Amino acid sequence: MASEFRLVRQVEFSETDMAGIMHFSNFFRYMEAAEHAFFRSLGFSIHTTAPEPLGWPRVHAGCDYKAPLRFEDSVEIRLLVRERRHRSLHYVFIFTRLNGGAPSEVARGELTAVCVRRDPETGALASTPIPEAIASRIEPAPQEWFA
Amino acid sequence: MASEFRLVRQVEFSETDMAGIMHFSNFFRYMEAAEHAFFRSLGFSIHTTAPEPLGWPRVHAGCDYKAPLRFEDSVEIRLLVRERRHRSLHYVFIFTRLNGGAPSEVARGELTAVCVRRDPETGALASTPIPEAIASRIEPAPQEWFA
Amino acid sequence: MASEFRLVRQVEFSETDMAGIMHFSNFFRYMEAAEHAFFRSLGFSIHTTAPEPLGWPRVHAGCDYKAPLRFEDSVEIRLLVRERRHRSLHYVFIFTRLNGGAPSEVARGELTAVCVRRDPETGALASTPIPEAIASRIEPAPQEWFA
Amino acid sequence: MASEFRLVRQVEFSETDMAGIMHFSNFFRYMEAAEHAFFRSLGFSIHTTAPEPLGWPRVHAGCDYKAPLRFEDSVEIRLLVRERRHRSLHYVFIFTRLNGGAPSEVARGELTAVCVRRDPETGALASTPIPEAIASRIEPAPQEWFA
Repeated sequence: MASEFRLVRQVEFSETDMAGIMHFSNFFRYMEAAEHAFFRSLGFSIHTTAPEPLGWPRVHAGCDYKAPLRFEDSVEIRLLVRERRHRSLHYVFIFTRLNGGAPSEVARGELTAVCVRRDPETGALASTPIPEAIASRIEPAPQEWFA
Repeated sequence: MASEFRLVRQVEFSETDMAGIMHFSNFFRYMEAAEHAFFRSLGFSIHTTAPEPLGWPRVHAGCDYKAPLRFEDSVEIRLLVRERRHRSLHYVFIFTRLNGGAPSEVARGELTAVCVRRDPETGALASTPIPEAIASRIEPAPQEWFA
Repeated sequence: MASEFRLVRQVEFSETDMAGIMHFSNFFRYMEAAEHAFFRSLGFSIHTTAPEPLGWPRVHAGCDYKAPLRFEDSVEIRLLVRERRHRSLHYVFIFTRLNGGAPSEVARGELTAVCVRRDPETGALASTPIPEAIASRIEPAPQEWFA
Repeated sequence: MASEFRLVRQVEFSETDMAGIMHFSNFFRYMEAAEHAFFRSLGFSIHTTAPEPLGWPRVHAGCDYKAPLRFEDSVEIRLLVRERRHRSLHYVFIFTRLNGGAPSEVARGELTAVCVRRDPETGALASTPIPEAIASRIEPAPQEWFA
């Protein structure tokens, strides 16, 4: 049973903007990268076509920013499973800058992803229960981890 | 006094992902584009260096997704000023798909941006009161516009 | 018969980098936007699923940069058809900054796109002749337009 | 003296497009990531403000694509120094997919970057000789490495 995952990245030049800091939209790409690495750590891929074409579109995404990230900063993205529902997963992500003195939390984000089956003909998406093979491997993190 | 702004965009190929829909992080780029066009509509630029180097980093960003956007969809991003504080602005963004039948709301987002002064030497950011020239042009939208 | 297309865009904040200029990779996204608008101007979409699933992956992309683009610059992307082969199209793109004095060419790019049929089952791509409906609408631009 | 650098990345979901493959513009972001990691491997950063504000804008970028990359593919980006001039560096990048059978070259790109000094007041860029500390560490790769 897994409740968390840690990913470390280094901010790239193309992720910065003219204000000299990482563009705020890229925190969401980092959250997604952590989510997908979390799935791989469990032996799954976030995007499967067999035995059935599943995907995980988002119904909610959010982020609170406390301090900027800059080019070549090292940042840990810690994924915590907040809630596992029948058809969706709710994650919290804690961003911690690792370089430049004591580690400090620079942002905290969240994603709610719904398990969908993608119609191979039409491309239409319909929510579906999380497959047991996946659901049985994931459980919410203890409350105190979110402090 | 301005409380809203409408921007229409067409989803680009490079904004889609392998699920065949606009990547969720791009809704935040669309919100920002609407915010910057709103500022231009008032005669300002979001990024100024004179008379002083001001910027508007985000302290919060969020989005609720109701339906996907696809390549070449036309979408209206309607910016509404939710709140004007001494040092920050809070916006709501209503995304409406215009093509493919009756217009329908596909997502609703929000941004809170803080007015900062950027130290030209060090690049450090410090919050500062919204300049009167800007603050005097912006007021919150009526409550019923958010329904 | 069409040989050119003009698209005007304004550089967005999220397209800049910490050097204060548009990130060089975004010129390629601009070329693609012009290519897709060119196709729409002819009544086609670059990405079709019916009557058959066609796509246009690139076999070559290049760009020469002469001057930077900055936030809120207006730039014209002029697409010129360089060559129409049996299975591919070769475009040249001339980037002209429109604001800030006399218009000046800031970059010149090129794309070679191959018409492919996408296998709906496997996703595999195989080159295919350009459909007559499309090929009959496109012809190379006169040599002197590239001067 | 260094002439090459190898970086391995895994294709991310946000880098794919609706055709199910990595968007062609992202190969240029990968080249840049390899260039910056190469500089770090020599003890430098590509973006310095002290002792002087140097940058490396591109005057040319190009890529030939042989096969697509897909989500979660592992790809090696091998940077080779093609030429070191007084004010510029010319790199070649060989992209090799590492998963899915024998490693195979999927793309080959190139960048020419010019060393510029950035005026701290105006932001204007002017080319400048490559600092000796950097130039003395870099030499072109042998001709046969490009075969």
